[in-house]
Amino acid sequence: MAVIDINADLGEGFGIWELGDDLALLDVITSANVACGFHAGDPLIMRRVCAAAVERGVTIGAQVSYRDLAGFGRREMDVAAPELTAEVLYQLAALDGIARAEGGRVAYVKPHGALYNRVARDEVQARAVAEAVRAYDASLPLLTLPGSAVHEVAEGLTVVAECFADRAYTASGRLVSRREPGAVVHDAGEVVRRAVRMAVDGGVVAVDGAEVALRARSMCVHGDTPGAVALARAVRAALADAGVALEPFA
Amino acid sequence: MAVIDINADLGEGFGIWELGDDLALLDVITSANVACGFHAGDPLIMRRVCAAAVERGVTIGAQVSYRDLAGFGRREMDVAAPELTAEVLYQLAALDGIARAEGGRVAYVKPHGALYNRVARDEVQARAVAEAVRAYDASLPLLTLPGSAVHEVAEGLTVVAECFADRAYTASGRLVSRREPGAVVHDAGEVVRRAVRMAVDGGVVAVDGAEVALRARSMCVHGDTPGAVALARAVRAALADAGVALEPFA
Amino acid sequence: MAVIDINADLGEGFGIWELGDDLALLDVITSANVACGFHAGDPLIMRRVCAAAVERGVTIGAQVSYRDLAGFGRREMDVAAPELTAEVLYQLAALDGIARAEGGRVAYVKPHGALYNRVARDEVQARAVAEAVRAYDASLPLLTLPGSAVHEVAEGLTVVAECFADRAYTASGRLVSRREPGAVVHDAGEVVRRAVRMAVDGGVVAVDGAEVALRARSMCVHGDTPGAVALARAVRAALADAGVALEPFA
Amino acid sequence: MAVIDINADLGEGFGIWELGDDLALLDVITSANVACGFHAGDPLIMRRVCAAAVERGVTIGAQVSYRDLAGFGRREMDVAAPELTAEVLYQLAALDGIARAEGGRVAYVKPHGALYNRVARDEVQARAVAEAVRAYDASLPLLTLPGSAVHEVAEGLTVVAECFADRAYTASGRLVSRREPGAVVHDAGEVVRRAVRMAVDGGVVAVDGAEVALRARSMCVHGDTPGAVALARAVRAALADAGVALEPFA
Repeated sequence: MAVIDINADLGEGFGIWELGDDLALLDVITSANVACGFHAGDPLIMRRVCAAAVERGVTIGAQVSYRDLAGFGRREMDVAAPELTAEVLYQLAALDGIARAEGGRVAYVKPHGALYNRVARDEVQARAVAEAVRAYDASLPLLTLPGSAVHEVAEGLTVVAECFADRAYTASGRLVSRREPGAVVHDAGEVVRRAVRMAVDGGVVAVDGAEVALRARSMCVHGDTPGAVALARAVRAALADAGVALEPFA
Repeated sequence: MAVIDINADLGEGFGIWELGDDLALLDVITSANVACGFHAGDPLIMRRVCAAAVERGVTIGAQVSYRDLAGFGRREMDVAAPELTAEVLYQLAALDGIARAEGGRVAYVKPHGALYNRVARDEVQARAVAEAVRAYDASLPLLTLPGSAVHEVAEGLTVVAECFADRAYTASGRLVSRREPGAVVHDAGEVVRRAVRMAVDGGVVAVDGAEVALRARSMCVHGDTPGAVALARAVRAALADAGVALEPFA
Repeated sequence: MAVIDINADLGEGFGIWELGDDLALLDVITSANVACGFHAGDPLIMRRVCAAAVERGVTIGAQVSYRDLAGFGRREMDVAAPELTAEVLYQLAALDGIARAEGGRVAYVKPHGALYNRVARDEVQARAVAEAVRAYDASLPLLTLPGSAVHEVAEGLTVVAECFADRAYTASGRLVSRREPGAVVHDAGEVVRRAVRMAVDGGVVAVDGAEVALRARSMCVHGDTPGAVALARAVRAALADAGVALEPFA
Repeated sequence: MAVIDINADLGEGFGIWELGDDLALLDVITSANVACGFHAGDPLIMRRVCAAAVERGVTIGAQVSYRDLAGFGRREMDVAAPELTAEVLYQLAALDGIARAEGGRVAYVKPHGALYNRVARDEVQARAVAEAVRAYDASLPLLTLPGSAVHEVAEGLTVVAECFADRAYTASGRLVSRREPGAVVHDAGEVVRRAVRMAVDGGVVAVDGAEVALRARSMCVHGDTPGAVALARAVRAALADAGVALEPFA
């Protein structure tokens, strides 16, 4: 029987500002990537999201980021390795303490935004992030892109790959860059069909028509655009209909 | 035999900026109040200070603050209680995680600057801080001013009072406000004599000449002014000469 | 013929986060209080709001604040006067430069949130704000609460009082505190009727039934709650129907 | 007769933290690159530095930066062009307003740290910075590295090149990267001799022994390392002894 986890970014407001519908998403996902205050998420939001996740049995992950509220962590930064390690450790520990105060705990780590993309190809930053996880709790898995540089450098850590039902793939199993046409699949029905294929067969049809194996234990859904929550619900329902078990990976 | 702890604020630089001589102070004190990033202290500084404290066997405390880098946490802020609780919890957890990565742990909590003064008289904020400590680890003592409102509201927590050898006291055992003349004792010899008196007899002569009992288990020394480290060393030496045991309270 | 200005807060998003419907409000108001980056508003938002205001002939004011993104400038802070003056001057100059790059200019200053309330009763901070305006351009009016301490200390500056159609007033012409029941008028029809009364007669019925004169040259409307823009539009339409001229005060 | 300007970075503290000796440097330099709050420099520091510069007749420049207090603006960031333009405009306008309140004005713009290096080779960011200067006041010169990409894209603006007496040059007139051995000249006497050569002959001996023409109208000196102010003073004295006129370029 096929098994998959559904993850999404949560707690991405800050102060008075809100983003996405956290409570609606918590009914769809099995793993919540909770922002830790560096790209979004203040301590009170973090506490509320953790409490709501614990209440619903959703697994909590630390969505660690560059220190960049103004850019929502979406701008690559040349942060030196010792500093990046310390910053990831800080965020991870802060969220874990808050999660524990609410009866839960951080069960995995997922880099956010530009850091997610950077550690997929920059071994120095990838190693810096892995070092933080190892220093805090080496049993925590890292959730990343398949083929990410993190896989090469995260010695002793568990690395879990995720897939995206709404993104196009190359024949080598990489995401088509958002700068290319057709990088994002906009048709909801198509997204749902791809999600089921990925979960049941572990595969996807690449942009050139080739069959690609993905082997992702988690599927990422989005919640911050119009219609996103409805689409996430449709994906979850279709996975359940196809007999796929929805279970957190961590 | 008299026993006292010596505490000081450490890790109060930020990024390129330094403040005080952390390494010199670590040879004088028994407890380090480490800044947690809200008034000072970035994650890398926190990590280095924790490593140095662990190496020297100095106890680590979380110096929690209002979110105010520009004002160094010295400006009172009307932060609502749930937010203040979450902010203190965040800082405490972040530092504890970093300390544990270095082989230590946070053993107590001390509010910083304006928050320290505010919780001495504002029960709402005092309760909010106590609530954060309780939520994280109710066994952690809070280090505060004698007579602080924290003592009234920190049900279930241990509250430890500290004394200041370089500050004048009123007949009721309160600190003379810095706005009053004579609030600070500037003569180094006098500071050293007062320190020994406080540790050996548990008392001090108030500004009106009255004998006041202090019963403080910890003594705060400063490190960020010229001559401060030398004075702290002199205090430590005099305490040792007087047969006072220097031991962390936590 | 009665004349009034309608002002509202604009540009109060930050980075990825949005707040309110700036473009809709620009069609209702005659003066835009543009956030300057300290409680909300990043430089790009500021530039876009200024461009849109200039395009529509809406007057631009600097909505200056405490440095407090996390609290949206709604928490009182004990900022020392020289620092507050410099911070207000910084925000005012930054917005004016941006407005000028878009073909406009800052024509008035309005303190935001907690600073607005604080300068209404704290002469030290009121004087600090006035000093900043005087240092930058003494011809710029300050938009404040009637009876604000600013009126006492803003020597040489023009101070303009504003009124609120959706707030209850005391017999002495002060706003009923939001902590009191009935402080806010929720009925849309009632708000519209009060707005017309204020503009045409310069008066309002206080909570105790007394007639109070207001003499406000500007009326503040809100845009960040559901239904707020629709209500603002209704107020504007009713004022126009009543023959009130809508003109900026600055 | 040879003429040169001496520039240095000033106002690079933040809140409680200090960096460098601004007052000592103001007696050495003819142009002050004043930090604008994004990598360092709060509004009060900006005001004090501007007042001191105006008092001594030192020209004020805006030292604009990425938004990165934690990294002191030394980490490259992938900021999108419209945002970078708005951020530079914001900083420039804020400092100019403060300078004018002190009787001076901003007379030029110099990018700081990672932005300085980035605009030397990245035409997109270079154009974004130039666009901000053009939008604010196209008569303000940009102070940059010789050969910087800024020269290519700053159409309609004046670009002024600066030289560094303590840095090694390649045969093509570029700075030797700090990652290479010998990039920095440490011998004070040698730095002074090079400074005089650069100012009098407009040339320098490159690392390979070749004679290189520099034609820099300004010379950058540093103030934030031990001995830096003394070295800056020695450079100034030697330039004066050699009959070089010290005059601001803007």
